[in-house]
Amino acid sequence: MKMLSDIGLVGLGVMGRSLALNMESKGFRVSVYNYIQSVTDEFMEGPGKGRGFQPADSYESLVASLAAPRKVFLMITAGNAVDSVIGSLLPLLSPGDVIIDGGNSDFHDTRRRTALVESKGLLYVGTGVSGGEEGALKGPAMMPGGSEAAWPLVKDIFTRIAAKASDGAPCCDWIGPDGAGHFVKMVHNGIEYGDIELICECYQLMRDGLGMSNEDMHSVFSEWSKTELDSYLISITADILTKKEPSSTPAETESSATPGERKDTATGYVLDHILDTAGQKGTGKWTVQAALDEGEPLTLIAEAVFARNLSALRDDRLAASQLYGGTTPEPPRLNCSSTLSDSHPMHKCPHRRSPDGDFLYGGTTPGQDVMAELTGHLSLGDLHDALLASKIVSYAQGFSLLRAASEHYGWGLDCARIARIWRGGCIIRSVFLDTIHDAFLSEPDLRNLMLSPWFRETLGRAQAGWRRVVCAAVGAGIPAPALSAALSYFDGYHCPRLGTNLLQAQRDYFGAHTYERTDAPRGTFFHTDWLA
Amino acid sequence: MKMLSDIGLVGLGVMGRSLALNMESKGFRVSVYNYIQSVTDEFMEGPGKGRGFQPADSYESLVASLAAPRKVFLMITAGNAVDSVIGSLLPLLSPGDVIIDGGNSDFHDTRRRTALVESKGLLYVGTGVSGGEEGALKGPAMMPGGSEAAWPLVKDIFTRIAAKASDGAPCCDWIGPDGAGHFVKMVHNGIEYGDIELICECYQLMRDGLGMSNEDMHSVFSEWSKTELDSYLISITADILTKKEPSSTPAETESSATPGERKDTATGYVLDHILDTAGQKGTGKWTVQAALDEGEPLTLIAEAVFARNLSALRDDRLAASQLYGGTTPEPPRLNCSSTLSDSHPMHKCPHRRSPDGDFLYGGTTPGQDVMAELTGHLSLGDLHDALLASKIVSYAQGFSLLRAASEHYGWGLDCARIARIWRGGCIIRSVFLDTIHDAFLSEPDLRNLMLSPWFRETLGRAQAGWRRVVCAAVGAGIPAPALSAALSYFDGYHCPRLGTNLLQAQRDYFGAHTYERTDAPRGTFFHTDWLA
Repeated sequence: MKMLSDIGLVGLGVMGRSLALNMESKGFRVSVYNYIQSVTDEFMEGPGKGRGFQPADSYESLVASLAAPRKVFLMITAGNAVDSVIGSLLPLLSPGDVIIDGGNSDFHDTRRRTALVESKGLLYVGTGVSGGEEGALKGPAMMPGGSEAAWPLVKDIFTRIAAKASDGAPCCDWIGPDGAGHFVKMVHNGIEYGDIELICECYQLMRDGLGMSNEDMHSVFSEWSKTELDSYLISITADILTKKEPSSTPAETESSATPGERKDTATGYVLDHILDTAGQKGTGKWTVQAALDEGEPLTLIAEAVFARNLSALRDDRLAASQLYGGTTPEPPRLNCSSTLSDSHPMHKCPHRRSPDGDFLYGGTTPGQDVMAELTGHLSLGDLHDALLASKIVSYAQGFSLLRAASEHYGWGLDCARIARIWRGGCIIRSVFLDTIHDAFLSEPDLRNLMLSPWFRETLGRAQAGWRRVVCAAVGAGIPAPALSAALSYFDGYHCPRLGTNLLQAQRDYFGAHTYERTDAPRGTFFHTDWLA
Repeated sequence: MKMLSDIGLVGLGVMGRSLALNMESKGFRVSVYNYIQSVTDEFMEGPGKGRGFQPADSYESLVASLAAPRKVFLMITAGNAVDSVIGSLLPLLSPGDVIIDGGNSDFHDTRRRTALVESKGLLYVGTGVSGGEEGALKGPAMMPGGSEAAWPLVKDIFTRIAAKASDGAPCCDWIGPDGAGHFVKMVHNGIEYGDIELICECYQLMRDGLGMSNEDMHSVFSEWSKTELDSYLISITADILTKKEPSSTPAETESSATPGERKDTATGYVLDHILDTAGQKGTGKWTVQAALDEGEPLTLIAEAVFARNLSALRDDRLAASQLYGGTTPEPPRLNCSSTLSDSHPMHKCPHRRSPDGDFLYGGTTPGQDVMAELTGHLSLGDLHDALLASKIVSYAQGFSLLRAASEHYGWGLDCARIARIWRGGCIIRSVFLDTIHDAFLSEPDLRNLMLSPWFRETLGRAQAGWRRVVCAAVGAGIPAPALSAALSYFDGYHCPRLGTNLLQAQRDYFGAHTYERTDAPRGTFFHTDWLA
């Protein structure tokens, strides 16, 4: 008689296979099932051979192989397939059993599925799993939500397979009811879009504005890895910049044309040969759509998603560049700091540590004399500050969205806990998240990160350089939509009186929509006959 | 025996009442029905008295009062109510009859309803009706879509009640199948959000950056009404700026608190007393969500929607302004042009007509020396150019969205026709739409307005001033999210090589997502082992 398994895993794609291996390596016995039998066979003959896996050739045999309460972890493509598998499993499982969806499901679907599965007396978990293939294999960040009674049943497995932060804490904790876990994972992905876009804009400013070499940019990103920007994405950017050709090979996947006949005698850096067109898979887009539904300004991530869309319109861009002179051999060049002849701009970087370890910025008082040194200069210290300040705005917007959705859906999200989970295992892992964690820990009801002392102080110091960078980009015609949008949001967020009174007047003029007044209580609406 | 009516109108709210009066004034006999009988009675005793209306007290009597093929026009709140009324009407109507929805329905709903109604052998029209109460009464812009066979049946009524453009053409034409009409109306509303936001940003720059008086700003907007910016929204802005107190009265509607006890001895301008917080009703948000679904960068309208969200966070803004020094008595002031002492900035406005009627801008070559005169100066000519250029971007983005959706849903949208409809009756009516109409007429497959000669030339001339305005806003800390987003998009759109190659490298690094290369055919995907 066979030993019963601790958990069943449905779907042996890259992510599912990696998760299964991760679980088994932590001492759990895992039953595995794939819709296509040969995939299961290959896994059992390959990486799964001689280890604690049990193959199943049907949902019946999968369920029969599990110890009660049974746990079935789906790692399949989000969408209708999840509903279909749930439909197949429900009649086979017993009350108290747990179905887990680890894909990037739309949180609306997870809300619906939780209700459905709970209505049958079973438990449902929709969990974010972040960190890609490597994360799944070695330790992902995990964001489980759904039926709270399921948490004690899956906690041991989840926390043992999850990544560990630098302090040893697992990057996994219970998020909240129904779709809360998938919502938080979705926002994580949106923030990832924003982080990546910001880095790409800084890269383009260095490449096209300062004419820096890949080696010099590598030095800058390596340096930034020692600052508040210390993060996975900054560190891989440094790696990428100096990766030399030839080491690329035609991918085995997704090729919709005949393999390119590129000569492998190409020299130089891989990065310089990569096409500047990106796709998007949905979670970034969903994050922005959710923000619109919640009425939360999420401008930076929106610009990041739209920037991917724009990058994909490459034929349009090439046509427009002909029309608008973007193809002139020598685009406008910014000067680095104030000395053109300085061959290595890092030497002029004003971003340096003081003797007591603090960072010095030479920042000006907000709003004072910011424009004084704008004319065509861009310093790497300013760029550092622009990136840091914009990153603060992005996370401030993202966490505000979490708070708004939590209130809307009654999830009771714990922002400190979420920041803690994101510190390791996932793509956005960074030192910065420790700071965010601390801010929410000391002030759980914090309405916006920008109202918290460290962030306030950092934005105060960074804003002068930030403004110079945006102006330099604007002057040079180098697109920096996310850096700019972040600054516009910052200026709007601390603006006590916007121009929106005119908007309200217009709506009252053409549609009698009424308005509130500064000299009357909120909730009292006035109308003016503007043509009288 | 009663005379049969030409059309039945369901819903006698402000819009429905106005449309009914409009139809009757054009010689059509109109049966009217409202769910609450007393509303019908009041209409018949009030504005409808002694005219060609016929009241109905049930759907049965409404339908019985109509000449075949019957036409029932719903002017009710978008959402479930529309489904409910359709459900009530279907059993009473006969094949070939037409149900028309004139509300701001979600185009997805209109797609579904068209299929449902057609499956019963009836015809369905979802039509945009723009122009608010006054438009509905005196002539709206109308955007009908749905069952094409319905168009000959409703064309006479629709074109006669619609607004007429300056050349006498009706602002109404057939848009396309199923949800096409409501989609186009939705995008119209999104563009309206963008136009309004841009004007508000220019207003705030003049008010807070240049310290201009309402009277001076009135002069500027009046002047702009004589340029390519000539439009309804610019002209009402001029009106609004000089509207004096006291002429406001507590609104009769929507008051959720006791009426304010404001003393009517208040003096000054109405605008100065209006609170800077706006709401949004959905169509702007939907437009951005649809753009995300289509993968079309619609950055300006997104910023406009988010700006409304941000304006509503007034308590946050006030708290942040304390933290960030936004409440200092003297905010940073920009200089108007180069002379501070000039009391009326219009005198320094470089925006002037040449003897042959063309506009002169003194523009610099794109990307050359743009930053030279940036330090703290803002001229009204530059502001004009920034507004015009940003408006071009907004319409370019909006029409690109129309094209993308048309391809996606197979609507065959005619962009020239849509621009022609918008020239009159609606909130965004403007001279500018004539120019757009001409561009699409001469080049029906135009992929983006920015690729068309007039727009290319205008952006070329305007971009230097536009860059100066954005930098001035950035330097002064005055939020200008839409003006900035437009410029970022413009710079991205004509950029032959973005920084997105780094994004693709990152995704290949952490997720083996593969990338395309500049030296290989499109559709060939490569992967690099970045750590090898």
